[in-house]
Amino acid sequence: MTIRVAVIGAGVMGADHARIIASDLPGAELRWICDADPARARSVADATGARHATQDPGAAIAADDVDAVLIASPDPTHADLVLACLRAGKPVLCEKPLAPSSAECLRVLQAESDLGRRLVQVGYMRRFDPPYVEMKARRAQPGLGAPIMMHNFHRNVSAPTHFTGQMAITNSAPHEFDIARFVLDTEYSAVSAFQPSGLAPGHGVGPVFMVLRTVAGQLVNIEINNNAGYGFDVRCELVCEHGAITLHAPSRTETHLHLGATTDYALDWRPHFAQAYRLQDLAWLRSIECGIPAGASVWDGYVSSCTAERAVEALQSGREVEIRYMERPAIYAAQPFG
Amino acid sequence: MTIRVAVIGAGVMGADHARIIASDLPGAELRWICDADPARARSVADATGARHATQDPGAAIAADDVDAVLIASPDPTHADLVLACLRAGKPVLCEKPLAPSSAECLRVLQAESDLGRRLVQVGYMRRFDPPYVEMKARRAQPGLGAPIMMHNFHRNVSAPTHFTGQMAITNSAPHEFDIARFVLDTEYSAVSAFQPSGLAPGHGVGPVFMVLRTVAGQLVNIEINNNAGYGFDVRCELVCEHGAITLHAPSRTETHLHLGATTDYALDWRPHFAQAYRLQDLAWLRSIECGIPAGASVWDGYVSSCTAERAVEALQSGREVEIRYMERPAIYAAQPFG
Amino acid sequence: MTIRVAVIGAGVMGADHARIIASDLPGAELRWICDADPARARSVADATGARHATQDPGAAIAADDVDAVLIASPDPTHADLVLACLRAGKPVLCEKPLAPSSAECLRVLQAESDLGRRLVQVGYMRRFDPPYVEMKARRAQPGLGAPIMMHNFHRNVSAPTHFTGQMAITNSAPHEFDIARFVLDTEYSAVSAFQPSGLAPGHGVGPVFMVLRTVAGQLVNIEINNNAGYGFDVRCELVCEHGAITLHAPSRTETHLHLGATTDYALDWRPHFAQAYRLQDLAWLRSIECGIPAGASVWDGYVSSCTAERAVEALQSGREVEIRYMERPAIYAAQPFG
Amino acid sequence: MTIRVAVIGAGVMGADHARIIASDLPGAELRWICDADPARARSVADATGARHATQDPGAAIAADDVDAVLIASPDPTHADLVLACLRAGKPVLCEKPLAPSSAECLRVLQAESDLGRRLVQVGYMRRFDPPYVEMKARRAQPGLGAPIMMHNFHRNVSAPTHFTGQMAITNSAPHEFDIARFVLDTEYSAVSAFQPSGLAPGHGVGPVFMVLRTVAGQLVNIEINNNAGYGFDVRCELVCEHGAITLHAPSRTETHLHLGATTDYALDWRPHFAQAYRLQDLAWLRSIECGIPAGASVWDGYVSSCTAERAVEALQSGREVEIRYMERPAIYAAQPFG
Repeated sequence: MTIRVAVIGAGVMGADHARIIASDLPGAELRWICDADPARARSVADATGARHATQDPGAAIAADDVDAVLIASPDPTHADLVLACLRAGKPVLCEKPLAPSSAECLRVLQAESDLGRRLVQVGYMRRFDPPYVEMKARRAQPGLGAPIMMHNFHRNVSAPTHFTGQMAITNSAPHEFDIARFVLDTEYSAVSAFQPSGLAPGHGVGPVFMVLRTVAGQLVNIEINNNAGYGFDVRCELVCEHGAITLHAPSRTETHLHLGATTDYALDWRPHFAQAYRLQDLAWLRSIECGIPAGASVWDGYVSSCTAERAVEALQSGREVEIRYMERPAIYAAQPFG
Repeated sequence: MTIRVAVIGAGVMGADHARIIASDLPGAELRWICDADPARARSVADATGARHATQDPGAAIAADDVDAVLIASPDPTHADLVLACLRAGKPVLCEKPLAPSSAECLRVLQAESDLGRRLVQVGYMRRFDPPYVEMKARRAQPGLGAPIMMHNFHRNVSAPTHFTGQMAITNSAPHEFDIARFVLDTEYSAVSAFQPSGLAPGHGVGPVFMVLRTVAGQLVNIEINNNAGYGFDVRCELVCEHGAITLHAPSRTETHLHLGATTDYALDWRPHFAQAYRLQDLAWLRSIECGIPAGASVWDGYVSSCTAERAVEALQSGREVEIRYMERPAIYAAQPFG
Repeated sequence: MTIRVAVIGAGVMGADHARIIASDLPGAELRWICDADPARARSVADATGARHATQDPGAAIAADDVDAVLIASPDPTHADLVLACLRAGKPVLCEKPLAPSSAECLRVLQAESDLGRRLVQVGYMRRFDPPYVEMKARRAQPGLGAPIMMHNFHRNVSAPTHFTGQMAITNSAPHEFDIARFVLDTEYSAVSAFQPSGLAPGHGVGPVFMVLRTVAGQLVNIEINNNAGYGFDVRCELVCEHGAITLHAPSRTETHLHLGATTDYALDWRPHFAQAYRLQDLAWLRSIECGIPAGASVWDGYVSSCTAERAVEALQSGREVEIRYMERPAIYAAQPFG
Repeated sequence: MTIRVAVIGAGVMGADHARIIASDLPGAELRWICDADPARARSVADATGARHATQDPGAAIAADDVDAVLIASPDPTHADLVLACLRAGKPVLCEKPLAPSSAECLRVLQAESDLGRRLVQVGYMRRFDPPYVEMKARRAQPGLGAPIMMHNFHRNVSAPTHFTGQMAITNSAPHEFDIARFVLDTEYSAVSAFQPSGLAPGHGVGPVFMVLRTVAGQLVNIEINNNAGYGFDVRCELVCEHGAITLHAPSRTETHLHLGATTDYALDWRPHFAQAYRLQDLAWLRSIECGIPAGASVWDGYVSSCTAERAVEALQSGREVEIRYMERPAIYAAQPFG
């Protein structure tokens, strides 16, 4: 069975997904590339061998030779495009976030819920990252006991100068919100947020540090550091009652030179999470083949957006903010995490 | 010049200090061992070659053949013993805490301030731990930029069953409060405290997680995990504007066996900080010889106690609590951190 | 373009290749599974969706719906099967070794040389292992200088009891012989071999340690330890004139438990080299599509066998043995390493 | 009991020992500094508070106020100075090597043997280095089995341009010869030696690689790389029948900057082995106090010199060379390794 795919959005993420689907996965055929910029659509189509390039996402979604849609267009367009896919009854993998606001997420949630079956996977690719998958599997290792705390560190080399603490929370933190829920199998109940002050003029936004509580009583601590400077770095530690599990940084070689032993950091997330993206897209194709949803759902997309909104509130108010979600619709009830 | 020392308190810490002074440091002679339990005093005196064993700390402090006093007796006795040393005009190294309450610390502060010169060193030995010393030295490395955040993790194998979150803060956290101030060269202005709930019955006290703000605007995050289970583990990361410095766990060998590569954790702080204790006691002797105070001062002891009291308040109230210290007396003004 | 593949040999390696080709690579279709044991052929065909299962390799090689052949049958059958593929003019990926003896390798070399173009890739998959690829790429890093020595360690959990030092050399060492040539871009000129004695009765074969010289004057040291006991472990260090590069063990998480921090070793080569096998098979498919050979050639297969034969001689004689290869045929002349 | 010490030789090593004895050890008093250069002797005496500076080693050895002698003068003077100490009946710690040739070592061996008791400790300080001590202690760990192979790597930043492979063996390798015997508790029976060729002009001497056999059948592999360029680096792995133990590089912090995570190497052996030197000198003082010899003996000094001579022969001849030692005199018979 070959799944014919349209990719909507031909920017950095879209081009990468197009490359993965066209040349690194079995059972897929890349048919359409859609972008607001026709030259960009054409260029990615040429590079990947996709037959059609278009500016019209509706045409791509509706096309007879498209079985499934991958959305990597600008965030504000996500919800409407996903809704169009749902109307067309076509499976869709939507890059995170599902939508910039929880209200928009709810529109999608309502639509999929009405449809009565899950067609949407949200691109929280860390759920397929081998180190996180191993961490989750080892949680059950005899002797460790239950998880009680999780430390998460997300660091980028630099962010655009207009970036703010609020954007750190709505843009970067959702990855952390999602993966911690995934590893812990639980939901959040409260969030506090802190930010250092006094950074050098011109430094750009400083780190945001959040402490979340889960309904199971755990603490989830998250550092979002978009101007960390030294490299793309994601760390994680799961602290259990009698032991702990730490994520290992991906590293292939060590260089011994000039009085130092050095391992490298990537410049951005792509080399760091290359395997995660490929395995995510592969799992998506397989989930379409076998009809069993995989990865993050619309519910997970909604939860991340909603959590981010409360975290922004916590940062602005300086107080711990309670988190409440709507009741989980039945079609997401049996959802296995992962 | 040989400094003749009395050690007051012959428990685990006192016996260790007695051994260091008697057989691992130049220029010192261990003369008196004092303990409420005469058999224990005698036993440590015999093991270390100290001439006198006594139950009476006043006698040891006043003795003609005692130049300096090391206090390692139970915490509630510290302040009065230090005050006795100040009255006798003898230099003293007092195990942390200086006193269980900031009010008592203030009594000592007042007395030493009245004396007009520093005679007291408080036993925050991490200031002499080579990894922390190196971290502080590297702070100034070109390119790193100013420190903006510090992550501190303090983990013990287990705590007595009666241990509470409040005790974690007053007992273990002062080491973290002190070392972060030392590395950052600043004071705290606020503290929040969190604790996971829902631990298995019988687990003992769960971790306390604190977020402190410094007057320079930095965030200092501290995990105190007295029932970590897996080993004695202290970690630290200093996050700067353009890079970071992490502390390395002390480790001498790695064993490859049974499908694993394993490095060991110590059971408690003694092997982990053995060098720090020796170097602290050595620095104390040298500071007596040359008359220039070293290590943590009474001011530092007061600050730790005061910070702990605010942190307990934060834990109990669930709110961020402002931290204010008294004005720093003149004799501590020029105090170099370190 | 879809390449239709026959896999000959349905043992551990063949089944793994069949799985990779059928479900983890784009542009391939697995058509035939051949094995001397018809039940085994059938079982792998069923698991992977291959259309045909057969006992007759000739039929699979000759089949109209087979574009390319992957040989993973027992070593002594390799040369004849490769020759049959050459006669059929079909590209072939042959598991290492190309043949158990250099004399047989020469038969294949002659045949492919007569054909005048390269159709055969030999399964030295480490050339596609990301850490080795990175090591080779970093060789040219400014400041390191030229490579002068290479340390290689190959460790398995255990070998069959009948295993001997000679078998360690002919069976396991070729991977090391090949990857060191690949990283260094040179050939060997001499080899010495050593083996510890006095192992506990019943331990199985002890390690073989070899020191090779290259024509460029470098030393290549190789430990083959087939009964290392603790895990599957491959290490490598490239020592250059002014620095060194070490390979990092693949590791995703670290577990902190029972007074130790532990990373895991795999039980065998499959998890360790999973990416290398996939990338090798992908490179093979792409090399067929574009007509440019990739990976190790028949020449490389011959060199490994020849080197192993001299190393066995060195082990038996206790002396350094000179290594001479036949002149490299023209079709391998322009061969880029890697 | 205070031991009054004379240090002979006020170069880098002598000055370092003088500093350790004067200000970092209990129970010692540094009295005499002797050097062929009177200004240098005076300068070190002034820096350490030694009472006397002299050019005459005989005067220092004979002085009434000298209980023990530490020899750190040029290698060719060692044997005669040690013999003078033996005649004076004074305990002596002699820097390695005991003498540049095994013949001279035998003169000392004969003299001490005639005396009938051990007065000489040879400065193989690695026997007191905590990582090696831990490695030796862990050898007996259940499950590891007997040691069968040991890999040793010795790397300096750079050597003088006149340095040769022979000098690498006689100068640096003795540390490795000694520590491997110490860890393994056995003697050598044969040695092979290799050297890469073709290094860039002006690079200086390239590494020497040796393979030694022990009488117990183990292999001991040693790389001596005096122009490693990148830093002072000593590595060691003990391979046992069912597992392995590796030495950990001493490292206190890690710096994350400019796309790399870096730990530092020292420029030379002093920071790396600072603890080893201090603990060695401390053990020497204690051995004098209690009358029980510690550390490496004259026998060990002889064995290292003798092994180095055979290794030079192996390097020159290109063949494996048998190693035979004289019969071990009775006073070294019961010598515990370590």
